[in-house]
Amino acid sequence: MNLLEGLTPEALAAPASGIVEVMNYGRGRPGMIPLWAGEGDRPTPAFIMDAAIASMRAGETFYTWQRGIPELREALSRYHQRLYGVPVPMERFFVTGSGMQSVQIAMRMIAGAGDEVLVPTPAWPNFAAAIGIAGAVAVPVPMTLEPSGWHLDVDRLAASVTPRTRVIVINSPANPTGWTASRDDLAAILAVARRHGLWIVADEIYGRFVYDGSPRAASFRDVADPDERILYIQTFSKNWAMTGWRIGWLEAPPALGDVIENLIQYSTSGVAAFMQRGAVAALDEGDAFIAEQVAAAERSGRIVAEGLSATGRVRFAPMAGAFYLFFQVDGETDTRRLALRLVDEANVGIAPGTAFGPGGEAYLRLCYGRREEDIAEATRRLVAALGAPGLRRSA
Amino acid sequence: MNLLEGLTPEALAAPASGIVEVMNYGRGRPGMIPLWAGEGDRPTPAFIMDAAIASMRAGETFYTWQRGIPELREALSRYHQRLYGVPVPMERFFVTGSGMQSVQIAMRMIAGAGDEVLVPTPAWPNFAAAIGIAGAVAVPVPMTLEPSGWHLDVDRLAASVTPRTRVIVINSPANPTGWTASRDDLAAILAVARRHGLWIVADEIYGRFVYDGSPRAASFRDVADPDERILYIQTFSKNWAMTGWRIGWLEAPPALGDVIENLIQYSTSGVAAFMQRGAVAALDEGDAFIAEQVAAAERSGRIVAEGLSATGRVRFAPMAGAFYLFFQVDGETDTRRLALRLVDEANVGIAPGTAFGPGGEAYLRLCYGRREEDIAEATRRLVAALGAPGLRRSA
Repeated sequence: MNLLEGLTPEALAAPASGIVEVMNYGRGRPGMIPLWAGEGDRPTPAFIMDAAIASMRAGETFYTWQRGIPELREALSRYHQRLYGVPVPMERFFVTGSGMQSVQIAMRMIAGAGDEVLVPTPAWPNFAAAIGIAGAVAVPVPMTLEPSGWHLDVDRLAASVTPRTRVIVINSPANPTGWTASRDDLAAILAVARRHGLWIVADEIYGRFVYDGSPRAASFRDVADPDERILYIQTFSKNWAMTGWRIGWLEAPPALGDVIENLIQYSTSGVAAFMQRGAVAALDEGDAFIAEQVAAAERSGRIVAEGLSATGRVRFAPMAGAFYLFFQVDGETDTRRLALRLVDEANVGIAPGTAFGPGGEAYLRLCYGRREEDIAEATRRLVAALGAPGLRRSA
Repeated sequence: MNLLEGLTPEALAAPASGIVEVMNYGRGRPGMIPLWAGEGDRPTPAFIMDAAIASMRAGETFYTWQRGIPELREALSRYHQRLYGVPVPMERFFVTGSGMQSVQIAMRMIAGAGDEVLVPTPAWPNFAAAIGIAGAVAVPVPMTLEPSGWHLDVDRLAASVTPRTRVIVINSPANPTGWTASRDDLAAILAVARRHGLWIVADEIYGRFVYDGSPRAASFRDVADPDERILYIQTFSKNWAMTGWRIGWLEAPPALGDVIENLIQYSTSGVAAFMQRGAVAALDEGDAFIAEQVAAAERSGRIVAEGLSATGRVRFAPMAGAFYLFFQVDGETDTRRLALRLVDEANVGIAPGTAFGPGGEAYLRLCYGRREEDIAEATRRLVAALGAPGLRRSA
């Protein structure tokens, strides 16, 4: 009896992560500097843990609100008002068990069998996977690397719309490319969506990680009305060093509230109240921590960018947003093998671009959201391992 | 622009919980005794919190294994070996963000568009909802209340199988009826599944809550081979008073491991490592706590059963498993209105049977998994409010 034969095609089609092979190859090696995942090296700040622990000790261990505790939804409202300068009522916020769950719920709501979802690539692979599990089809819209940086051709995006298209996914600042849409870019994309009656799934989770001195990247909320067909994906993971907590939020027009509540009810039935208390502390008291994290990422990003540039073999876009260096190495076409080799030769863990869809195959993704010393050491090792091709071979 | 028009039919069809109306009606009333939800009144035991807090303080706040930390999967293996007397290897266990998420992943794996899933009813409404969200159809198989207790007619179950049937959901001990399948029942159901090549989703989360002196209810593992098409749904919620934590597990043949890992990856991407450390403590050190909980539930159940029996108006099955009294009140046909009235007149919160599908409409569900004093007081109030019809009207 072959058990796999009994499974649905959607489940069978869910792909393994293309990063996992390299992680499994390198995990546990002494001295390994792991830059393959999208997380930093700082544990969650103590003030966030303290709030969660106090809640747990106070016995907040019972079922709670499916949409999130009111205190967290109010804190989200305060945070957004502060960051965007416009009121964003608490009714727009739905607490989820991760940014990933927000994506899953969004896709379940707006993309079903036979629907097409446009995804600019290279992209975080979990978008396409979640789209496939919902029974829809992810249609890649390849971006291009120009001298000025990564570029999404909005005409190409518009030309990819078919009668089956229902959704455009826009991740800005982007994982893995660092592409950070301007306000004009977002307005142009929104115009395409409006023209065709499409939804936008706006993953703005790296919105604080920009390196032009602004407190945040441009957002669809700068150009759209609150009641448009836009679902915002968000997470506590990156801003507040809470990757392991699995807590995020979905922002949506309140008219969708009952549907979202039901989809939460029938997937995870809410998020631990004590974790939500930690999240309230993060929002209310975490601005200084975010500022430190962004400044550290900027310093670390410049170290690795300058170091790899000096090899003369490496190409990448100027740093804009998020915290990844997405780079190409001259003469290296098989990035999966290169990533495995760098584990052996540099003891540095990097994700192969093959994990990120069309247009990413020739690249490697390195997360620089870590302390400077580690990034400097990783850079030295990578430079030694990559070097100039002749030098490397003679070493 | 009607935003709801843009949503998928599966999302729109996800029903609101039939319990929520009564909860919203009664929530926050002073002195209210809430017996509408499936949870007790004890917070999580301190030894479980301690383990979670120590882990958090030690900085276990990073991404972790999608299948669960090895230490928890090993603890699950130990727990099952102890409880069932047979080795159950850790490769069979997948940690999830609730029993509900286990159901969701199970349904996504084995039930898709056009498939039928048999669900004996009255049943926990979340089964049918999760089936619908997966694009499949829940087909109720009504059970009957006999003098000996609730009864699932296996011939009727078999007669409900069509060429589109893919899955049978069996929840034993059952929410809301308390039905607890015998080993022979399970063998007969398994024979039906084998004959037609069906999957079984075995929700055995109330398996410890039985009142015949056994440490556990009969389980499909008593009659099935490990590599059969059975997916076991489990949660930490009930046994260890962890309803608010949102952590459970799915047990499946290891051949499904990669698919399950991918479905976890693309829904919530795992469970907080610090919560998993709490769960390890629960499994390894929680037997005495479970014994206390079961003994308390038995005492409380007998109090309410005897109290309501004395009214002469109330009918229910003999206590078997789980911790619900699922009862009918003579002369009361509209249980939704009755539940609302009992909020007003008894200040006791009870779930209307209309929430539990075909065959449950005439019943009310009362959770007796709470301290004796509360249950005794709730019983007094319910008896006063229900009384004999004549008595009540003249009161």
